[in-house]
Amino acid sequence: MDFFFHPKGIALIGATATPTKGGYAILKNLLTGFKGGIYPVNPRYTEIEGVPCYPSVDQVPDPVDMAIVFVPGRLVPAIVEDCARRGIRGIMIESGGFAESGESGLALQEEVLQVARKHGIRLWGPNCMGLVDAVRGLVFSFVAPTIWENLIPGNVSLIVQSGMLSGAFLIDSMTHGVMGISKVCSIGNKMDVNECELLEYLLDDPDTAAVGLYLESIPDGRRLMDICRQSPKPVVLLRGGKSPRGAAAAMSHTASLAGNGAVIRGCLVQAGVIEAKDFKQMMDICRALAMYPDVRTAGDGRVAVLTYSGGAGIVSADFIHETGLELATLSDDTRTALKSVFPEWMPVSNPVDLWPAVERNGVDRAYGTALASVCADPGVDAVYVHAFTGGFALNLDIDALTSEARAAGKPMAFWLLGRQEDARQFQEEAQARGVPVYREVYRAVECLDAVFERKRMLTSREPAPPETVTPALPEAVRQMLETERGVLEEYRSKQIVGAAGVPIVAEAAVDSVASAREAAERFGFPVVMKGLVAGQVHKTEAGLVRLGIGTAAAVASAFETLRQQIGPEGTVLVQRQEKAELELMAGMVRDPQFGPCVMVGLGGVWAEVLDDVAFAAAPLSRREALNLIGRLRSQRLLNGFRGAAPVDRDVLAQVLVDLGNLGAAYSRVQEIDINPLLINEGKPVAVDATVILS
Amino acid sequence: MDFFFHPKGIALIGATATPTKGGYAILKNLLTGFKGGIYPVNPRYTEIEGVPCYPSVDQVPDPVDMAIVFVPGRLVPAIVEDCARRGIRGIMIESGGFAESGESGLALQEEVLQVARKHGIRLWGPNCMGLVDAVRGLVFSFVAPTIWENLIPGNVSLIVQSGMLSGAFLIDSMTHGVMGISKVCSIGNKMDVNECELLEYLLDDPDTAAVGLYLESIPDGRRLMDICRQSPKPVVLLRGGKSPRGAAAAMSHTASLAGNGAVIRGCLVQAGVIEAKDFKQMMDICRALAMYPDVRTAGDGRVAVLTYSGGAGIVSADFIHETGLELATLSDDTRTALKSVFPEWMPVSNPVDLWPAVERNGVDRAYGTALASVCADPGVDAVYVHAFTGGFALNLDIDALTSEARAAGKPMAFWLLGRQEDARQFQEEAQARGVPVYREVYRAVECLDAVFERKRMLTSREPAPPETVTPALPEAVRQMLETERGVLEEYRSKQIVGAAGVPIVAEAAVDSVASAREAAERFGFPVVMKGLVAGQVHKTEAGLVRLGIGTAAAVASAFETLRQQIGPEGTVLVQRQEKAELELMAGMVRDPQFGPCVMVGLGGVWAEVLDDVAFAAAPLSRREALNLIGRLRSQRLLNGFRGAAPVDRDVLAQVLVDLGNLGAAYSRVQEIDINPLLINEGKPVAVDATVILS
Repeated sequence: MDFFFHPKGIALIGATATPTKGGYAILKNLLTGFKGGIYPVNPRYTEIEGVPCYPSVDQVPDPVDMAIVFVPGRLVPAIVEDCARRGIRGIMIESGGFAESGESGLALQEEVLQVARKHGIRLWGPNCMGLVDAVRGLVFSFVAPTIWENLIPGNVSLIVQSGMLSGAFLIDSMTHGVMGISKVCSIGNKMDVNECELLEYLLDDPDTAAVGLYLESIPDGRRLMDICRQSPKPVVLLRGGKSPRGAAAAMSHTASLAGNGAVIRGCLVQAGVIEAKDFKQMMDICRALAMYPDVRTAGDGRVAVLTYSGGAGIVSADFIHETGLELATLSDDTRTALKSVFPEWMPVSNPVDLWPAVERNGVDRAYGTALASVCADPGVDAVYVHAFTGGFALNLDIDALTSEARAAGKPMAFWLLGRQEDARQFQEEAQARGVPVYREVYRAVECLDAVFERKRMLTSREPAPPETVTPALPEAVRQMLETERGVLEEYRSKQIVGAAGVPIVAEAAVDSVASAREAAERFGFPVVMKGLVAGQVHKTEAGLVRLGIGTAAAVASAFETLRQQIGPEGTVLVQRQEKAELELMAGMVRDPQFGPCVMVGLGGVWAEVLDDVAFAAAPLSRREALNLIGRLRSQRLLNGFRGAAPVDRDVLAQVLVDLGNLGAAYSRVQEIDINPLLINEGKPVAVDATVILS
Repeated sequence: MDFFFHPKGIALIGATATPTKGGYAILKNLLTGFKGGIYPVNPRYTEIEGVPCYPSVDQVPDPVDMAIVFVPGRLVPAIVEDCARRGIRGIMIESGGFAESGESGLALQEEVLQVARKHGIRLWGPNCMGLVDAVRGLVFSFVAPTIWENLIPGNVSLIVQSGMLSGAFLIDSMTHGVMGISKVCSIGNKMDVNECELLEYLLDDPDTAAVGLYLESIPDGRRLMDICRQSPKPVVLLRGGKSPRGAAAAMSHTASLAGNGAVIRGCLVQAGVIEAKDFKQMMDICRALAMYPDVRTAGDGRVAVLTYSGGAGIVSADFIHETGLELATLSDDTRTALKSVFPEWMPVSNPVDLWPAVERNGVDRAYGTALASVCADPGVDAVYVHAFTGGFALNLDIDALTSEARAAGKPMAFWLLGRQEDARQFQEEAQARGVPVYREVYRAVECLDAVFERKRMLTSREPAPPETVTPALPEAVRQMLETERGVLEEYRSKQIVGAAGVPIVAEAAVDSVASAREAAERFGFPVVMKGLVAGQVHKTEAGLVRLGIGTAAAVASAFETLRQQIGPEGTVLVQRQEKAELELMAGMVRDPQFGPCVMVGLGGVWAEVLDDVAFAAAPLSRREALNLIGRLRSQRLLNGFRGAAPVDRDVLAQVLVDLGNLGAAYSRVQEIDINPLLINEGKPVAVDATVILS
């Protein structure tokens, strides 16, 4: 892929001298920054902007290894052929008129791709804004040349499925804020080069410390996951199309399919990816993570707040309470140090309100003492400093403060108020020293939270996908998996999941009143009886489930009635009626983007009210299974609610591992749904299950 | 209070010629903007900055009706005496050293207040930054005189319990953004003039269209509520100290008491107050509400999104889905109009992606057609327009677009990206035409949501507190309310709430096996039996509750055992065992700030897991009671979950009205707790209750 990022020479097909056109902007941008060969191609010109222009790509001289194409779509297949003849290895197609514009465009896109594949040419785009590299000063894009006025080199790179993000947004970010950028890759319809390949490239790129992605579709979710889960560099993702209508818009926008939100979210957590929610917020989080990619503090986010405004301190404390962070409890040493700069009457607390200390001791002593003491405090993992600049008697020694925190290895963030010019200078100075500066109280808290969320993820993620352990299934079950199709009824479904390791309820398929009675007596009254018919998944609604059958006579009568209802093909099931302190559910789905995924959630009545489920890609390691359980919101219910035994997490984790292995090993298993998975004295037991085979 | 806002002349006590001191900044600020008499007072000078300086306030010439004090606290009592002698009517004490600095400061504050009350002088502060009035160009504050460089007049006023908000924050807001301001009142320790009085003043102020408050304590919550509930001007509140640690910080900051969050939140909703969460966000919401204080659209927030970036459209749709807004479904007329500017292949949807339309028809026709059609669309209540400026071929006709939307009476908001200078100009132009401009996708959605949240609140709020309807209680119950004290046991508690109108379970206090049996037979088996002892509220834990007693023999045995457990003083209760499809709870608390408040929430096992409760100030109108029920998150459970009957909201609302009237009419009722309030075939019935009398 180096020919896209460091080409020797570029043929610009569709160059023009008309200043309002994209083909002109691309040329201007190339001329401004690119030091290699620049060869405009357009039969209507002999030169543009003093550069010789060629009638066709065949005539372009050496060196040339990359082409940028900005011509109507229908001309592109022939151009790809031309480029192949000329020995060009990569083509960035920035013009539109392909898959995004309906069926004929999609067909054209397919045709272009065929031609390129035939010649071994790589394609970037189409319908994209190409590449901006602020570190090397390269703009391979029709973005307005005003971008050069404020191109700020930095170490955050972006991969974006949106032209806006690589154009207007960049210009905005860099003129309003102090947001350095490394490479911005606009991938458009990503017909060949996609986010996975670019992400791998950027994770190897020495100019990149963190990567932000804006994606509306993740067609190869599993590959993206596997790249991210071993990445030492932070990856932040903003997904477009999370809501039903957002997803509809995404589908019509770039012909994308937004997958099941809960599946994607689960897989991203598993891979250590931080999710963002808005464009600027993504950049702010990337900035923080690029500065603090690998935090090694003792705790997971105990924050000391140093403020010059009691009100801002209070609001910060409120925000910290909302996140995964917590306010640090200051040590006795810290309290003693703070007392030395505080007035007598003032109690020491966190947030540390430094105004009175500054009034008594001056800025340097007050802030310096406070920062040194919290940096030395083993109970503090991060420092949130409020700063005012411009027109206030609060000139912070940025160099001293940032050095102290960096030396202590404690992430620090500034919230800054002040006159615009002064604020910009403060921001530049602090960020050059590796400490991010934010302008809303909440945003700084959110970014510190992301830093520690990543720390927690790094401790728990598996750097490589676990091996699939193929369950040793009895011959009869293997047979079933090979020969059956569609929705299996409950009894057969449980035979499969039971064979894979999941504890299932004591039950028997019975074919006579006598065998029904025998089973009921063996399990103990009361029992449950069910009538099973292939394909019938709504047994309760169909009146095929009898609970609390308390006598042998009732068993006989239930058997007869059920038999009548389901006919000779159906199966009558007698089941122990399990006591349960909690209803869970568990399962496996085969996601089109992320492959087999395991699910665990609250079941029964809780399912419908709490909607508390979590997914992870299978196979699962034991640790991943425990993390998956830990991601449910209803931890209080799992921990033994109202005197109930807590859920045995080891056993439950094993159930999830088993389900994952079953799904990963047997590709015909499309879906498994265990609902309810009852918790009886802490132990899970599958009471009903459905397996769907392809 | 006019002498604070429009004084004829100001004595500045503590004026100084030292430029780094507050007493100098105040003088500079007065000289810059105030046209009345300015009289520095300080025995050490005869003049400062060319203005005659007086040795004491006695010598200050006419006209003078206000004093600003910036001297050490201990000197203040004598100064108040001096001011009284000189005929001064209001004193703004900006210096600190009072209640915020511990016990001796609190005593000093009390002393100052006594002196002022004696002379009928009003006090503003202490420990505050006074007043900034950007419309009239008045700065009665030691805020840095750099504030003048960017003082932008506007129609949003602030009342803030934080110096930062009236100083650094203002300077920041006005230099970075285009945030016009009217009056900013910094109230500090608010020992005399408080937020209620100032709010009343500002709601009458012709220069103020919306008010933002930052408060760390709301000592007279009921009064604040009553002012807000009749206000035609929007009020936005940012509360500091919502989290436990935030509240602790708030208490030490301005000696404030942060009340119960759920009570405050409920009362604010009832009064039509919008809550903000961060400082800039509060300003952004105020700005939107000042522009759209009284929306009259048909719907409550159906938004059309006009975008120039598919990605931004998708992310906007995701955000809209998270709020109380929804994406509008476009009418056939709108679709036809849009098709006229769209390329053939492009389907019409909302968000409306205008890029291809702009490419075909130019900016004015594309945006103009789109905006005109959604403005005429009866299914659209608001328009969210994405704009890029500076370096893009997208020069929107701001005047035409904003006029169209304003004429249609549909709130409109811009999200804007672009080079800083261009962006600022765009923002100024659009905002001068009454349309707010935001720079984060989410913030614009949040502000439009606030506009429609206010619309919904205006339709449902009571403009005046309802009258208390004193419940007609039987003599025995009135007697109980007058003579008893403390925690009443269940039976007596239910006699009280039952008399007030709450349906209670069929039950009888029994004194013999015979009467117990008689009651049980009357109610029908199974019954519940309980042993009641005064002061014992944890009956279940104490083994004093027997459920499911199914026979007369069991009644007899339960009676004997309970009698033994509770002794001769206790009461044995026989109760019908109610079936229930849902457990709620309801009650009344007497909040120190908001007075009697009614609570309703999910009860039983749901209470502990969902934590779903809502409060409102009593007495309640029927409409307010229905709104209160509507504020519970678990509407699915109330609407008839899993085939259960839906909760009869009319009857439940009446229970809440009755509880409110009981609390409002009988001040000795400190607390009422009905838990569970069972729902049986949709109807509420109180099964257990505790009343606490003072």
